[in-house]
Amino acid sequence: MSRKQMHLATILSNGLGLPYAWLEPQVDPADYANIHALVRYAKAAERGKLDFIFLGDFLAQSQRSEAHAPGQTLEPTVVATAIALATDRIGIVNTVSTTFEKPYNIARVLKTLDVVSGGRMGWNAITTSAPHAAANFGRAIDDRETRYAQADEVIQIVQALWGSWQEDAWIADKNARRFTDLSKIAPVNLRGTYASSRGPLEIPPSKQGQPVMAHAGASPHSHALAGRYADILISEVFTIDEARHQRESLRRAATAAGRNPDDIKFFAGVIPTIAATPAEALARRGRLVEPDIIQQVHYLGRLIGLPLGPDDLDTPLSAAQLSAARANPGDPRSFRALEVAREGWTVREVLHHAVIDFHPAPIGPPEVVADHMQEWFEAGAADGFWVTPDIYADGMDAFVDGVVPLLQQRGQFRTEYEGETLRDNLGIDHQYGLRQPHSKP
Amino acid sequence: MSRKQMHLATILSNGLGLPYAWLEPQVDPADYANIHALVRYAKAAERGKLDFIFLGDFLAQSQRSEAHAPGQTLEPTVVATAIALATDRIGIVNTVSTTFEKPYNIARVLKTLDVVSGGRMGWNAITTSAPHAAANFGRAIDDRETRYAQADEVIQIVQALWGSWQEDAWIADKNARRFTDLSKIAPVNLRGTYASSRGPLEIPPSKQGQPVMAHAGASPHSHALAGRYADILISEVFTIDEARHQRESLRRAATAAGRNPDDIKFFAGVIPTIAATPAEALARRGRLVEPDIIQQVHYLGRLIGLPLGPDDLDTPLSAAQLSAARANPGDPRSFRALEVAREGWTVREVLHHAVIDFHPAPIGPPEVVADHMQEWFEAGAADGFWVTPDIYADGMDAFVDGVVPLLQQRGQFRTEYEGETLRDNLGIDHQYGLRQPHSKP
Ligand SMILES: Cc1cc2nc3c(=O)[nH]c(=O)nc-3n(C[C@H](O)[C@H](O)[C@H](O)COP(=O)(O)O)c2cc1C
Ligand SMILES: Cc1cc2nc3c(=O)[nH]c(=O)nc-3n(C[C@H](O)[C@H](O)[C@H](O)COP(=O)(O)O)c2cc1C
Repeated sequence: MSRKQMHLATILSNGLGLPYAWLEPQVDPADYANIHALVRYAKAAERGKLDFIFLGDFLAQSQRSEAHAPGQTLEPTVVATAIALATDRIGIVNTVSTTFEKPYNIARVLKTLDVVSGGRMGWNAITTSAPHAAANFGRAIDDRETRYAQADEVIQIVQALWGSWQEDAWIADKNARRFTDLSKIAPVNLRGTYASSRGPLEIPPSKQGQPVMAHAGASPHSHALAGRYADILISEVFTIDEARHQRESLRRAATAAGRNPDDIKFFAGVIPTIAATPAEALARRGRLVEPDIIQQVHYLGRLIGLPLGPDDLDTPLSAAQLSAARANPGDPRSFRALEVAREGWTVREVLHHAVIDFHPAPIGPPEVVADHMQEWFEAGAADGFWVTPDIYADGMDAFVDGVVPLLQQRGQFRTEYEGETLRDNLGIDHQYGLRQPHSKP
Repeated sequence: MSRKQMHLATILSNGLGLPYAWLEPQVDPADYANIHALVRYAKAAERGKLDFIFLGDFLAQSQRSEAHAPGQTLEPTVVATAIALATDRIGIVNTVSTTFEKPYNIARVLKTLDVVSGGRMGWNAITTSAPHAAANFGRAIDDRETRYAQADEVIQIVQALWGSWQEDAWIADKNARRFTDLSKIAPVNLRGTYASSRGPLEIPPSKQGQPVMAHAGASPHSHALAGRYADILISEVFTIDEARHQRESLRRAATAAGRNPDDIKFFAGVIPTIAATPAEALARRGRLVEPDIIQQVHYLGRLIGLPLGPDDLDTPLSAAQLSAARANPGDPRSFRALEVAREGWTVREVLHHAVIDFHPAPIGPPEVVADHMQEWFEAGAADGFWVTPDIYADGMDAFVDGVVPLLQQRGQFRTEYEGETLRDNLGIDHQYGLRQPHSKP
């Protein structure tokens, strides 16, 4: 059932696109601080019936070079509110760190957003491992063990707070002068090693009860946490084999936690570049790669085990080079890089294929992108895709108006939202408060 | 100049009104969790050219009786965003606790809101003294000395973070491939006893630079803090004498901090009840008092030094009682209570005048409310008023459409916004980052 059609999400980062997108003529660089631009992309995504908008969050300076725009400018609660009020059906999944935010605040902000959006929120619960983020809170980063133990406590407290105003606590009986039944709004009194809260949280249920749970990550700790709590996992995978492997690991973690593995949707990333012809698409993506081409050619050499430099850029790899090349098993992008190199492109063109990027990059007319997604989906590599437009200014529309209709025609994607809430559209069971313990299947 | 016309603010608490407002027939009790109701009242306030909307915040359960609605349901960042996007000129002042929120988060959320609103935000920086709020963060309440020392550090760090992205750091030069001048986005590296942050905060200036500073409180610690940092002080005062006294104390605190005392606007609270006739207005306010009438009659007795009980409700105080009565100097509301009692009302009617409430309560046709405000303003008791509608459903419109035009006709209040930002409308100097030290005047 959930395997019949894929789910689709998109991320609105800085509203510009890949690091050099802001240099393109169609991009207004002022959009980096323009909430109306983000809202416009969210509305486009809703036109495409996408499941949800994902908002990342990094609690530190994200701009590392003057040539890049910052990865994020506006605080995500504010952005989510703007999107919630300008849309009707699409979900919104906000990243909030379990390391530097307090459970009472997390619970309050996200449940408010869930009420205001009419039951369309999700929480991407992640730990923070960046020392610069810790320094913004006057702290140092804890080891991974501690961060994930804290995350586990924080998630439990947040969910308990969500449930602390019972679903039928609101009465509003004017004759009896009873606004609520106060016996149904009770403290949670949770005290952990890393986090505590008394409660209750004075917010009623949303249309879907409480936010959906997401997690982004790939480490064993990450999968163990997601296996216990997540409805959605966002991954970073470069090949179908790697994706299947990670999806299976996640499903085992869910089973180990006593859950039905079908209850977690595994999302694979994709950063498409779409144009009318393959050549135009490659040129478009190439422009976004060019400023880093010298760094990238050296990096490519390390990926495929050849000593490459700027002098190699404008010729294809020779037969001798290709037979000496070896994909580096430590970086799964090396397999794709070698595959493209074997097609006979010049080294520069290989790099223009964005073989060194954060997610796979189908580049070409809409069919190329739809084919990539269908192939992965049918191979059991993903339950859904997490799509980053290359340049938001026209890349979001290109995906929504070019790729989505193809996926719909092929029966791979919905033509209408299943329901009103994010739970409805993802097919996720009702949950209110802490999840009831499951018996092992 | 700032004394020529008064400033006006209103508070949107739960969107219902005084504790028993939800019982009135014109009130939809579902509004307690309805962002659209709050936005509607904000738009009405903007129609009245009010300076700002104030959003309070209490980090714990606010509902103490089943007969009351909670004081607040939706988290204020979300509410402020909704209001910012639905309005153009009115300011929004959000309360954020310096006790339980981290400076990096405070700075980030409020500067984002300032950018998104086009320079219309303010920060009501207060300490939290409620043990139930502390328990929601797994903590206990510190003594007042510590809370205010922490507030001082937190405010400094927040303002330094606001200034850490310099006003001219954004370049967006596509030819030179420079998005920003990174030398103008620098860490603050502030380490205090109670709070620390590295920075920088990656958010550009808003149309007014950074949010305006407000503070609500009355203790000597509170005035000392406000004297150092606030542009706005919200007070709780019941008589003109008390208000003048507090306003002078605040102005002395500003002078002691090396500032011009005219740079802080002192707001006095008022909870008007407006109707076509005095009798209708008194009946309306009376309905909001009646559920507590028994408690209140005992309380009134303590205020004016008489043993009053339910049997006294339906007669005026006798000449003997009136001559024995003494206003309790520990509670300034006692003076007003005695004044009303001397007018010959029954004890019940005295209480219907809302003599026991959080702020003075002018009750009657719009003229009565306008007279109250003009009298206080001309007596130097306030620079502005902080208005709580009794019942939002019709009380906000009654103030905006009834009282504001009178104040405008009398030249006491603006007929058009002076500018686009909250600083423009309050007449507050530009500030970016930490305030430059002033020489003592
Ligand atoms: C697709 C994806 C998106 C992510 N988004 C964020 C984010 O927005 N903010 C963040 O702090 N970390 C983000 N992360 C990082 C992870 O949540 C996690 O911190 C990181 O993978 C290191 O975790 P580990 O300690 O388990 O190795 C993301 C990771 C992935 C794979
Ligand atoms: C008009 C007014 C509004 C206030 N609003 C809030 C509020 O929204 N949230 C809050 O926690 N405290 C609020 N307070 C409480 C004060 O900020 C302060 O905590 C209280 O006066 C006790 O402070 P003290 O320790 O200086 O005595 C308000 C006070 C006044 C006078």
